[in-house]
Amino acid sequence: MRVVDIIQRKRDGQELTDHQIAALLDKYLKGSVPDYQVAAFLMAVYFRGMTDAELKTFTEKMMHSGDIIKFEGVKKFLVDKHSTGGVGDKVTIALAPLLAAFDIGTAKLSGKGLGHTGGTIDKLESIPGFVFPETREELVSQVNQTGVGIMGYSENIVPLDKRLYSLRDVTATVSSIPLIASSIMSKKLAVYADGIMLDVKVGAGAFMKTIEEARELAETMLGIGKNFDRKMVVHLTNMDQPLGCAVGNALEVIEAIETLKGKGPKEFTDLILHLTGTALYIKGNAKSIEEGAEMASHMIRTGEPLDKMKQFIKANGGDERIVNDYSLLPTASDQVDVIAKKAGFVRKIEAEEIGKAAMILGAGRATKESELDYAVGLVLNKKVGDEVRVGEVLATLYYNAADNLEDSIKKVEKAYDFSSEKVESQSVVLDTIKGF
Amino acid sequence: MRVVDIIQRKRDGQELTDHQIAALLDKYLKGSVPDYQVAAFLMAVYFRGMTDAELKTFTEKMMHSGDIIKFEGVKKFLVDKHSTGGVGDKVTIALAPLLAAFDIGTAKLSGKGLGHTGGTIDKLESIPGFVFPETREELVSQVNQTGVGIMGYSENIVPLDKRLYSLRDVTATVSSIPLIASSIMSKKLAVYADGIMLDVKVGAGAFMKTIEEARELAETMLGIGKNFDRKMVVHLTNMDQPLGCAVGNALEVIEAIETLKGKGPKEFTDLILHLTGTALYIKGNAKSIEEGAEMASHMIRTGEPLDKMKQFIKANGGDERIVNDYSLLPTASDQVDVIAKKAGFVRKIEAEEIGKAAMILGAGRATKESELDYAVGLVLNKKVGDEVRVGEVLATLYYNAADNLEDSIKKVEKAYDFSSEKVESQSVVLDTIKGF
Repeated sequence: MRVVDIIQRKRDGQELTDHQIAALLDKYLKGSVPDYQVAAFLMAVYFRGMTDAELKTFTEKMMHSGDIIKFEGVKKFLVDKHSTGGVGDKVTIALAPLLAAFDIGTAKLSGKGLGHTGGTIDKLESIPGFVFPETREELVSQVNQTGVGIMGYSENIVPLDKRLYSLRDVTATVSSIPLIASSIMSKKLAVYADGIMLDVKVGAGAFMKTIEEARELAETMLGIGKNFDRKMVVHLTNMDQPLGCAVGNALEVIEAIETLKGKGPKEFTDLILHLTGTALYIKGNAKSIEEGAEMASHMIRTGEPLDKMKQFIKANGGDERIVNDYSLLPTASDQVDVIAKKAGFVRKIEAEEIGKAAMILGAGRATKESELDYAVGLVLNKKVGDEVRVGEVLATLYYNAADNLEDSIKKVEKAYDFSSEKVESQSVVLDTIKGF
Repeated sequence: MRVVDIIQRKRDGQELTDHQIAALLDKYLKGSVPDYQVAAFLMAVYFRGMTDAELKTFTEKMMHSGDIIKFEGVKKFLVDKHSTGGVGDKVTIALAPLLAAFDIGTAKLSGKGLGHTGGTIDKLESIPGFVFPETREELVSQVNQTGVGIMGYSENIVPLDKRLYSLRDVTATVSSIPLIASSIMSKKLAVYADGIMLDVKVGAGAFMKTIEEARELAETMLGIGKNFDRKMVVHLTNMDQPLGCAVGNALEVIEAIETLKGKGPKEFTDLILHLTGTALYIKGNAKSIEEGAEMASHMIRTGEPLDKMKQFIKANGGDERIVNDYSLLPTASDQVDVIAKKAGFVRKIEAEEIGKAAMILGAGRATKESELDYAVGLVLNKKVGDEVRVGEVLATLYYNAADNLEDSIKKVEKAYDFSSEKVESQSVVLDTIKGF
């Protein structure tokens, strides 16, 4: 069948066979199908969607376009947590040691952040001495030894997704549920885990504008997961403010450690407990997510997760004393408070503005070549639902160079949206959808 | 606005402004918008359609992407007839002299045929000595003198349509009513005529499968025509058999002349009368198409259209004596009858198979470089509605080389579809839609 006929079938809402999907993607990978035919195909998918069978084949083809990572030799039950990486997302750093305390392994390939703040890799590299494993064998040995293994992202995981994503990005075909689902799932499936926790962000700033859309995406991903025999849970999460209070590399490491000490921001702590509860439910150690979250809360009080954190840092050559002495981390030379000029209740904090405020202080990369300043960033003092009086501190900025300070302050001020009436603080997790 | 945002607006069913459409097409023409973005845009148009305002701008931009031909100096009322060029379509050759007899001018840029049979240009070139005008001045002078001017197609009329059509062809975006309408209308509008008659073919083999679709296309084109102040009529025509009986260059010239003598096939004659009636109605010389057709029928009996044909041939250097002596035209050395092997009523004659049967005898071009044999082709003896007995002649093949003769006979046999019950012969024109 010619490629144009495959496009036409999709356009007309007829189901494509495995063979047709495979032919299209194989030829595209080999370069014998041009971008313009795939662009038309993607737009047809935007309008027509994909059936379960199509989506399975499409995802499988994507997944097998590059390396499949199996982590052979890992002796632990692996649970992978995927988040779309919001501003202030230090979930992995707090979650992995907590899971390790329950003998649940984390084996993660993580990317360098490009954008508002660093990625997980950057954040952990703010710890003096910390060097990630260079080989997969090393990573597997760390998982077996400490429960946590994280390394830099290999370039060859689902290369087809990179190509398709670049094309979708310029052809208005990003926000298609089957395309988003297959993109995320192919990457999740290419890197082995026994259980998968996915986080779908909902809100004005996210791809999924409404809870209904988000639920549809969740169901679609769960459908794919079932076809590949993975135990999955999807969380729909709120995007109305950054996650936690700290934004900036070393500052986020500190907040993650504080959370493992039981002193983290409530909303962030609740999320970590919920995720750990979910992992325990997936592994079968808890009858419900709620029961698992209770177990997690208790575990934090034992101090074991903090020990796991130390072991993890040490195994990577890092200075584990930072856990008890934050002054051993990179520290900014100056700090300044952003003071509230108006009173009210915080209704929303624009995460993107906050991210930019931290980035221009040096916490994030504007381009691939930018050098990060691990020490700088900001800590929010007021979050959604809090009452603010004029003159109170909204946030504290930590900086080494004052070049962009005024601009950064303005961005923080701009990020805050106030209401004259009391605002209920929403929980991060709006809904939890189980796939098994 | 970025191109991706323009695509997104269309995708989401929002109306594009003149400026946005102009920007997209201008940038595409200049090469700064790649095919893949336009491919996605076209697929979005396939699903979302275009508003009247969008279509007007889109068509105008297409039209102005190349030369605008105004035929300055023409002193006659010009009516252009556009057909999608079916097998056996010799309409222009019979119609133009008949219109000329009513002082209605034909000024036409015509293409060489690529496919089953030659184009109008090829057919007329079968007349010994016939050479088309090379300049537009010459064409205008011929129109003023004889009422008919035809010349080869300039490459630079609506070049954007050529690019878009090539892209549509491989991205399954051909059969979109606004895209078909703007493609046809931009070409019609780029070459001036006071009145326009369009022919939309309906049937299994045509783009428009149903009369409803065909009517929608007709209304869309009429809408565009109104925006450009042209008097237009659209005919929906039947595709269930070739037009007339003759297929092949010189053979079709003969059939056209026979029609001007009042001895053409009834169905083809009826079409020519209907078209002439339409032109008279457009010009305002007849109160209705039916009255115009009556006038045309009477005009044929006066012999004046035949004289106009002679003048037209002579003006182009051709031997006008062919009108009374067909042996002066290229003549095939041999002929053979295709004999009916089964009895019944003809229900359908697959035009494409008939076209191929003529082409492989040498009447059409398989590639751009193929040499045409003007003499060869075939004449159908049985048409839809006719009763056929075993042993009767279905068609006669005229050939010079016997190489593909067996194959050609088989194609003719294959083209005929019989019914055991009586079949009503349908008229060519299924419906006539007036735009003013």
